[in-house]
Amino acid sequence: MIKHLLSMDQLAAEDIVQILDTAESLRHVTDRPIKKLPTLRGRTVCNLFYEASTRTRISFELAAKRLSADVINFSADGKSSVSKGESFKDTAWTLEAMGVDAIVVRHSASGAPAQLSHWVKASVINAGDGSHEHPTQALLDLFSIREHFKDFTGLHVAIVGDILQSRVARSLTKGLVTMGAEVTLVGPPTLIPRDASAWGAKTSYSLDDVIGEVDVAYMLRVQREREAEQRFPSLREFAAIWGLDARRAAKMKSDALIMHPGPMNRGVEIAADVSELPRSIILEQVANGLAVRMSLLYLMLGGRDDSADSPNEGSKS
Amino acid sequence: MIKHLLSMDQLAAEDIVQILDTAESLRHVTDRPIKKLPTLRGRTVCNLFYEASTRTRISFELAAKRLSADVINFSADGKSSVSKGESFKDTAWTLEAMGVDAIVVRHSASGAPAQLSHWVKASVINAGDGSHEHPTQALLDLFSIREHFKDFTGLHVAIVGDILQSRVARSLTKGLVTMGAEVTLVGPPTLIPRDASAWGAKTSYSLDDVIGEVDVAYMLRVQREREAEQRFPSLREFAAIWGLDARRAAKMKSDALIMHPGPMNRGVEIAADVSELPRSIILEQVANGLAVRMSLLYLMLGGRDDSADSPNEGSKS
Amino acid sequence: MIKHLLSMDQLAAEDIVQILDTAESLRHVTDRPIKKLPTLRGRTVCNLFYEASTRTRISFELAAKRLSADVINFSADGKSSVSKGESFKDTAWTLEAMGVDAIVVRHSASGAPAQLSHWVKASVINAGDGSHEHPTQALLDLFSIREHFKDFTGLHVAIVGDILQSRVARSLTKGLVTMGAEVTLVGPPTLIPRDASAWGAKTSYSLDDVIGEVDVAYMLRVQREREAEQRFPSLREFAAIWGLDARRAAKMKSDALIMHPGPMNRGVEIAADVSELPRSIILEQVANGLAVRMSLLYLMLGGRDDSADSPNEGSKS
Repeated sequence: MIKHLLSMDQLAAEDIVQILDTAESLRHVTDRPIKKLPTLRGRTVCNLFYEASTRTRISFELAAKRLSADVINFSADGKSSVSKGESFKDTAWTLEAMGVDAIVVRHSASGAPAQLSHWVKASVINAGDGSHEHPTQALLDLFSIREHFKDFTGLHVAIVGDILQSRVARSLTKGLVTMGAEVTLVGPPTLIPRDASAWGAKTSYSLDDVIGEVDVAYMLRVQREREAEQRFPSLREFAAIWGLDARRAAKMKSDALIMHPGPMNRGVEIAADVSELPRSIILEQVANGLAVRMSLLYLMLGGRDDSADSPNEGSKS
Repeated sequence: MIKHLLSMDQLAAEDIVQILDTAESLRHVTDRPIKKLPTLRGRTVCNLFYEASTRTRISFELAAKRLSADVINFSADGKSSVSKGESFKDTAWTLEAMGVDAIVVRHSASGAPAQLSHWVKASVINAGDGSHEHPTQALLDLFSIREHFKDFTGLHVAIVGDILQSRVARSLTKGLVTMGAEVTLVGPPTLIPRDASAWGAKTSYSLDDVIGEVDVAYMLRVQREREAEQRFPSLREFAAIWGLDARRAAKMKSDALIMHPGPMNRGVEIAADVSELPRSIILEQVANGLAVRMSLLYLMLGGRDDSADSPNEGSKS
Repeated sequence: MIKHLLSMDQLAAEDIVQILDTAESLRHVTDRPIKKLPTLRGRTVCNLFYEASTRTRISFELAAKRLSADVINFSADGKSSVSKGESFKDTAWTLEAMGVDAIVVRHSASGAPAQLSHWVKASVINAGDGSHEHPTQALLDLFSIREHFKDFTGLHVAIVGDILQSRVARSLTKGLVTMGAEVTLVGPPTLIPRDASAWGAKTSYSLDDVIGEVDVAYMLRVQREREAEQRFPSLREFAAIWGLDARRAAKMKSDALIMHPGPMNRGVEIAADVSELPRSIILEQVANGLAVRMSLLYLMLGGRDDSADSPNEGSKS
């Protein structure tokens, strides 16, 4: 298994299959009343979040706790040592010196997790870095898609919205292409990266053109905090042209799915009622995120010594 | 046992007795050097606090940990997903999808916990919602009173101060009335609700009139952050007329108690020296809060499957 | 063993030796893949931080968790009860009532931990109070020095920089003097306390004069947040006269060490390249901090009943 998870580029198809298969085994744990495995007892996972997050931080925290690891939360706000001028490198060294086993890092700078991985012996997991990548989101999306379609071959996924700024789009496209699916990036010309063909994806400037053909419509969050609005006229116009409303959802193939990485801007990239259609699997994505993150921690940390238990054996402690 | 605890309206006298009796059993756990029961191992409790709190959050966190549950803290401040526009509903769904077993929620909006309970399968515990209710505070107060007087019949409790804005007054009055005690709401006319008679309580505009007759003087916190000051002339005048000072405390019956939900504004609703009189049981209230919250988590979550242990058997792990 | 750790004044040489020896035993735990002892299961440690900190809070949190204690974090910021006007005393009483076993406190006011220790039955550990003391930092520094030199007799340590404001300098000097080492406080006259001779230390206004003679150069952090800058001309001038740069480091004895309590202001009190020299043991200090804090919690809490296990026996649970 890989030591760090920084980018979907690191993962071949068989790596992805291993992660998803392990997540599937581990999901049985989360369905039990006692949702706990002793696998990572005595290991320490640090959530190092330099950007706001709820679901990703909680998802990793729960994943680690359900494997019996100790969890340290570090949010870099005014109270932390950032206000004392402590550098990212010093923080890395501090965590390393304390014997932390894994660092889950979110940072506004693309490449920060890769940098971190050069400084520490701990495993580094990229929980989102700037507009670069968000590989665990991509893996949970792949898990969710595989669960419904069993196979990626011949699948056609549209990723819709602000592709340019989206680390989710970048990671998911890589993962889907690796697994053999077809990807179309859909959005206004200003929000589609120029090198999209290098991603192995098609592009389209019309959601109406593709919505009837795809197996998955993956709606990206309009990231208001990243000033996406400067690159399109208005939220209203964006919603009218690029939003998934009831009219467009009705044109989808009968077994096609609607996905969103959350949190949603209802009425912008997705209509409120559309987000609750039976074909919307947005909540499944959240649940699967927990299983996929358990899987990663299990594979990256659990396999290092003989104390790791098989996820199929159940709780022993 | 009830699924959610949203309001004292849900609890009949026998429910309250069950909660208090269980708390009494569990208090022996907190008196031991090893203050831990395995009852909720593998369960997850989320503290979802949209309003500032120390003692309530810590009390619930410790209660859950002493029953061996995993605890996730979520405070909605600038760093959380609230700043990304994530709605309360989305947060609820996220926690639900992650398999959280109980959500302890504090919110500035009355009714927010009830709303939450419609969205999730997890148990919801109201840790204070706007000026509506704070049922776990009422239960710990009932516990504290019962411990001293054994029985509620014939007891007379004065609840004093800003009744109108007080979720504590609302919940405690309901609980006391249910248990058969007599309640007098005491305060300036502007801070007494007009429908007080519907609460089953008497009202009085004079603390001096009632202080010599009551078994308990329950002093409410003047909630400066809720702009109570706009409804009375000054803190000094409030203290002079509605505050419990040494002179008034000296008029109390020999076995009468002084209570306060904390944190105190010393010199406003209660004099500093009065808060430390032997008849003041303010710190007992805090200690009992832990036992009552353990009791609630135990009854609401522990009974769902066969793994629950009796609180009387002690630690087995 | 002492009940509280408030100041290095409390510790005789044999107390320090006991703490360091126990830390040495416990360090083997942190070197194992499963870094956990059951010693403090069911005990609760509260981190009560009224000042920003990363490494100290995380170090104590990890130390407690590796001994299987439950940890409650309380940071006094706008979200906490400080914004509701809850006093330090009330917070102390609240924690006491909840049965917390140890309170690790950092506070901007010198003497706050001592005050706290009068209010609670829990053990109080000073994690830094104003410009008074930071005894656990001194202990981890003593541990780090002992590891390299085995003995303190005849050792000469220079503590360099803003001595006046430094709780680290105050605690470390006391510890070194107690253990029999020679200490020279080095810095500009405005930053050296007038009563330095009462500390049992020499003073020098020239780093160049002493750098070639000492066994340890302990560089203090310039605490910009404490307005040290008002007492010397400029950071650039400070760095030129009092900073440890490559030229000065080259003059050090062959086996002499460079230490720093972190976080560093690179280019001010220490040059970036100097901080990474082989003779710099700054990261060892961090790692040793964890072992020393485990040792303190172990000795202060573990010995109170028969459930404490020897740190040499390893994990039993």
